[in-house]
Amino acid sequence: MSQRNLTLLTDLYELTMMQGYFKEKDANETVIFDAFYRSNPSGNGYAISAGLEQVIEYINELSFHEDDVDYLRSTGLFEEDFLEYLRKFKFSGDIYAIPEGTVIFPREPLIKVIAPIMEAQLVETALLTIINHQSLIATKTARVVYAADGDGVMEFGLRRAQGPDAGIYGARAAMIAGCVGTSNVLAGKMFGVPIKGTHAHSWIMSFPDELTAFRNYAKLYPTACILLVDTYDTLKSGVPNAITVFKEMREAGIPFSNYGIRLDSGDLAYLSKKAKRMLVEAGFPDAIISASNDLDETLINSLKIQGATINSWGVGTNLITSKDCPSFGGVYKLAAIMDKKTGEFIPKIKLSENAEKITNPGNKEIKRIYSRETGKIIADLICLTGETIKESDSLLLFDPIETWKKTYLAPDTYTVRDLMIQVFKGGECIYHSPAVMDIQEYCKHELNTLWDESRRLVNPHEVHVDLSKKLWEMKNQLLDSYHFTNS
Amino acid sequence: MSQRNLTLLTDLYELTMMQGYFKEKDANETVIFDAFYRSNPSGNGYAISAGLEQVIEYINELSFHEDDVDYLRSTGLFEEDFLEYLRKFKFSGDIYAIPEGTVIFPREPLIKVIAPIMEAQLVETALLTIINHQSLIATKTARVVYAADGDGVMEFGLRRAQGPDAGIYGARAAMIAGCVGTSNVLAGKMFGVPIKGTHAHSWIMSFPDELTAFRNYAKLYPTACILLVDTYDTLKSGVPNAITVFKEMREAGIPFSNYGIRLDSGDLAYLSKKAKRMLVEAGFPDAIISASNDLDETLINSLKIQGATINSWGVGTNLITSKDCPSFGGVYKLAAIMDKKTGEFIPKIKLSENAEKITNPGNKEIKRIYSRETGKIIADLICLTGETIKESDSLLLFDPIETWKKTYLAPDTYTVRDLMIQVFKGGECIYHSPAVMDIQEYCKHELNTLWDESRRLVNPHEVHVDLSKKLWEMKNQLLDSYHFTNS
Repeated sequence: MSQRNLTLLTDLYELTMMQGYFKEKDANETVIFDAFYRSNPSGNGYAISAGLEQVIEYINELSFHEDDVDYLRSTGLFEEDFLEYLRKFKFSGDIYAIPEGTVIFPREPLIKVIAPIMEAQLVETALLTIINHQSLIATKTARVVYAADGDGVMEFGLRRAQGPDAGIYGARAAMIAGCVGTSNVLAGKMFGVPIKGTHAHSWIMSFPDELTAFRNYAKLYPTACILLVDTYDTLKSGVPNAITVFKEMREAGIPFSNYGIRLDSGDLAYLSKKAKRMLVEAGFPDAIISASNDLDETLINSLKIQGATINSWGVGTNLITSKDCPSFGGVYKLAAIMDKKTGEFIPKIKLSENAEKITNPGNKEIKRIYSRETGKIIADLICLTGETIKESDSLLLFDPIETWKKTYLAPDTYTVRDLMIQVFKGGECIYHSPAVMDIQEYCKHELNTLWDESRRLVNPHEVHVDLSKKLWEMKNQLLDSYHFTNS
Repeated sequence: MSQRNLTLLTDLYELTMMQGYFKEKDANETVIFDAFYRSNPSGNGYAISAGLEQVIEYINELSFHEDDVDYLRSTGLFEEDFLEYLRKFKFSGDIYAIPEGTVIFPREPLIKVIAPIMEAQLVETALLTIINHQSLIATKTARVVYAADGDGVMEFGLRRAQGPDAGIYGARAAMIAGCVGTSNVLAGKMFGVPIKGTHAHSWIMSFPDELTAFRNYAKLYPTACILLVDTYDTLKSGVPNAITVFKEMREAGIPFSNYGIRLDSGDLAYLSKKAKRMLVEAGFPDAIISASNDLDETLINSLKIQGATINSWGVGTNLITSKDCPSFGGVYKLAAIMDKKTGEFIPKIKLSENAEKITNPGNKEIKRIYSRETGKIIADLICLTGETIKESDSLLLFDPIETWKKTYLAPDTYTVRDLMIQVFKGGECIYHSPAVMDIQEYCKHELNTLWDESRRLVNPHEVHVDLSKKLWEMKNQLLDSYHFTNS
C-alpha cells in the first residue's frame, strides 16, 4: 500500500467542501475531528482497533499528482486557484490515536485529527475506510478465536474477500486479533505473518485416485501433511486412504509431523468423532483434525459442545467479510474549532433526537481505569485534554445519561492509563508501527484485561464509557444553550 | 490496479500444489477449470457478472519478481528448481468468459480456464476474489436500482467499504449495474464514471449558523446545490433555511439548477412529504429531494409504498458491502484433463451428497435461448463445446435433476446466443474491455431480457439452467461409473 497514492480515494464532497473553505472562509482555521464508532459489531462486548499503520501510510503519501489535478479540472467543479492549492497540498496537522490491537468501546475517539479544516476534511473518507475495515475484521476474528478456545484458527477467506485489499488487510487484521496463520501469501510477505495451507479437491481429482494423490502429497510435504479427505467419501475413502499413507510413512521410517486430515463438508461433529476413532485405532492419536466449510464463532461453539474432535479451524467467508455484520460504522465528526484570537478550541456538538447519537464536544482524550487488584478494566473515561487523575485520590464515575448510576473508587484501588498516543506532529509521523506479530502479542494481553463476562459471544456485559465531570458539564451547557435559528 | 503485481495474492495451497504438480507429475498437463457460483445472493433471481477487466489485468501482470521468489524461499517450503520455474512463469493458457454486465445464473461457467495445470491452479484465488466481489456488488446494486424504480441511485459507500479496493471496485460494479454516479473520486478518475456529492454536517457546523453555511454553499455551487437539512432540525431549521437561500438566488437572478435538499436522518417518509409541501408552497416544485441513511432496496421499496417524495437516493453501507449477503460464493472447479496421447479432454466430476453441488464435467459453453417474440430469456443451456442448435429445428429442454420437467420449443420461435467469449489465447489477451459506462448500457439491455417475475425482489421466478442432452448423458455416465477405491 505504501506505493499507492490514495489521495483521490475520497468522497467528492470532501473536495467540494475544501474548495468552499478555501473560497469562503479562512482556510487555515484549525479544527478537531474525532473518528469513533457507535456500537460494537456482531453484538460483541468490545472491538479491537486496527488499521492505524495503513492510515499513517495513507497520510504520508497524501499528494495530488498532476494527473489527479487534471482529472479534477475536467469535472468542471473546481477553480484554478483551488487546484493550485491542491498541487502544493501537504498534511500539516497533528494526529492522536489508540494503538492497534487495543480493546476499544463505542463513542471513544479512536483517532483525533487536529489540523486546518481543509486538511482534516480531506482525510475523512479514506481514514474511515481503513479503520472501519480492519477494526471490523479484527473484532470478528477475536470472536472466532474466543470460540475456538485455544485451538488454532487459520484465516482462509481470500477468495471470498471483497476485493484484493479486503483479503490483504483483512488477513492483517485477523492476525492482529489472534489467528495462527493465513492462507494469503501476499499478506504473509507484506506483514511477516505465518502462512498456512493444505491442498484442494483439484489436487485429488488430478490424480487417477485419492490414494495416489495422498501419497504424492505426503512424499513432498511430510512435515506439513494435512490430507483433505472429503473429495469422494470421507469415512469410506478419505480417512482410510489417509491412514494408509500415514502407516506407509511410519513403516518407511520417514519423519513426519504436523500431520492429519481436513474435513471440508458434511456433518463435522459426526465425521470428526468417527475419524478420530479410526485414527486412534490405527495408532495416530496425535493426528490433527482440521475443519473448514462456512465456519464461524457460533458453529465452532456448537461443534465444541457436540464433542467434535476438531482441533484446528480454517475460517473463510464468515471471518473475512464479517458476514453477520459486514460494516463497522465508524464516523468522523467535528468536535471543536480554534478561535483565532484566543487560540482556544471552541467545542462543537452535533445534535440528534437520539441521545446516543449526540457527539462529545471539545478536545478530548481517553483514560482507561483498571482494577489494581485484578488488572481488569473497570471503565473508560473520556476527559478533556489536560485533565489529570491522581490514583491516590478517590474517583467517582457516573453514567453520562443516567447520571444517578455512580461508581465510587477508593484511593489506590485503581490505575489509570492514557489510551491515545500521538502519531503525527506538524504533519510529520512521529510513531513507528510495531510488527503485526508484536501487535498480536499486545492484543492477547489487551483481551486479558476484559472480564470473561465482557468477552462471551452472546449478551456480553457492557464496559462503561463515562465522561469526566468537566466534559459532561461542557456538553450539557452546549446542549442547554442551543436555540434554533429559523429563517 | 494495472500497476499492482498481485501474483502472490493467492492461497498458499495453490503454490504447494503447483510444486506438487511440478515434482510429481508432468507439469504441462492441460486442464479445464470452471469458475461458477451456486446460488444468487440476497435471494435474487439472477446475478450480474462483473470484474472481468480486473481479472484480465491480473493475468497480464502475473509474474514472480525477485523479492517474491526470495520470500517464497524464506518459507522453507519450496525447492530451487521450482523457484526457478516460478521466476520464468508466464500464463500461457486460453480463457473464455461471460462479458461483464451480463445477467447470469447459478451453475453456469462464468470463466473457463484452459491451461497447464500449474498455471490454471495459480490463478484460482485472485480470479475468484475479483469476480466474487464485483459480481456481488453489481447484483446488489441491480436490486437497489430496481427498487428505486427510475429514480437515480448514487453509490455513497466508500467509508464503509471493506478497504480501498472494495470502495474502488465496488463503485465500478455499482456503476455497471445502474447507479447514476458515485461519491468515490478515485473511481471516477479510474473508470470515467460520474462523481456526485453534496456536503457533510461538518460544513454546516463550521459556520456560525446553518443559513450562512447554506448561503456559502449555494454561492459556490449554484448548479449542483443540494443542501443537507438535518444538522439541527429538519423541518424547523433545515428546510426553511434552504428555501430562504433558494428564494434569495431566484430574487438575485442567479441561474441555479439541480438544486434541492438531502435528508440524512429521521423518518424519511414523513419528512420528505412535509418538506415537499414546504418546497412546493415556496414555489420550488422541481426541487430534488434526496435521501441517505442506511438505505437498501427493502427500505426504498417501503418508502415508495408510503408515498415518500424522495426522487434521488444515496445508498452507502448496505450496497457497498451487500450487507444482507456479503459474499458471492463463486467457486473454481476442475472440469477436465487432457489425455496427452489423444489430445481429448477427459471429463472430471466432483461428487457430493447434495446433487446441486455435483459439478458439471467436460469442456462446456453456454447457449442462451430467447423467445423470438418477446426477446426475453426462456432458459440457458449448458452444452459441450462444439454442440450446435439450429433455430429452425425444434428444441426440447429438460430439467437436469427432475428430468420429467420438459419444455418444447417449436422451430423458429426462439433465438440462440453463445454467452462466452474468448479473452485469452495462448497467454495473450485478445479482448478489449468496454468502458464502464458502455457496460452499464449493455447491462440495462441485459436486465430487459428478464421477465419482471424474475426481477422482483422477493421470491423471484427462477430462470432455468438446463444441460444439453449430450452433457447430461456424459455426467450421468460418470456418476454411474464411479466406484470408491478404498484402501
